Amino acid sequence: MRRFGLDKRLAADTTRIMRLGLCDLRLMDEARWPWLILVPQRLDIAEIHELSPHDQTMLTFEMTATAEALKRATGCLKINTGALGNIVRQLHVHVIARSEGDPGWPGPVWGFGQRIGLDEGERERLCEAVRAVM
Amino acid sequence: MRRFGLDKRLAADTTRIMRLGLCDLRLMDEARWPWLILVPQRLDIAEIHELSPHDQTMLTFEMTATAEALKRATGCLKINTGALGNIVRQLHVHVIARSEGDPGWPGPVWGFGQRIGLDEGERERLCEAVRAVM
Repeated sequence: MRRFGLDKRLAADTTRIMRLGLCDLRLMDEARWPWLILVPQRLDIAEIHELSPHDQTMLTFEMTATAEALKRATGCLKINTGALGNIVRQLHVHVIARSEGDPGWPGPVWGFGQRIGLDEGERERLCEAVRAVM
Repeated sequence: MRRFGLDKRLAADTTRIMRLGLCDLRLMDEARWPWLILVPQRLDIAEIHELSPHDQTMLTFEMTATAEALKRATGCLKINTGALGNIVRQLHVHVIARSEGDPGWPGPVWGFGQRIGLDEGERERLCEAVRAVM
């Protein structure tokens, strides 16, 4: 039986925060904005509408729980969510904390400038801050 | 009692395709990619997680029905969805048809170049094509 495996590019760019019921909740290695990624643990799914209705509902609740936790953990003004997947086809959902005055505000984060990596301490602090309020 | 009203910028940039159970389904005036917008008919909601759990589930099903219809109507390769709202705060969800070779592929549509408006015939044809498969 084939087992779910995380896409190599997602694995390289993210760190696991915790496992939820459906998704792996991960932190993007990005210092400009707190950026979380949800990856449903399902084989060969590229689109939200390819998930079963039950999994779609699970994903919705995990997305909203993640958004609320991220807002509490960061005090951000606005959550941005998206599922693009034009390059990395394995379904993954972005949940990003935005605030007035962040680099690029009020524009979108996708395609904006160059990624700046987190240092080890900041990565651990962000993971812990999200875990504490999930 | 205050009644729901569509944000003026969304009204200016979009045309109604049809009313769904929760959302107004609208076509963005954009010729570069078929671009739909779902607007939940709820007052003072800026984030998906501010909707009731029932409305969140409704939104999920309307998003996936819209994505499947858009894929059937256009034959696109990939659906891109997002809820940003950094400028227009009224909650609205983007559902966009992407294909290899479209302007900007495989980058994101948000923040990319200048919008090109649809002509009247193309607008009507797209609305009808989506209605026919919803």
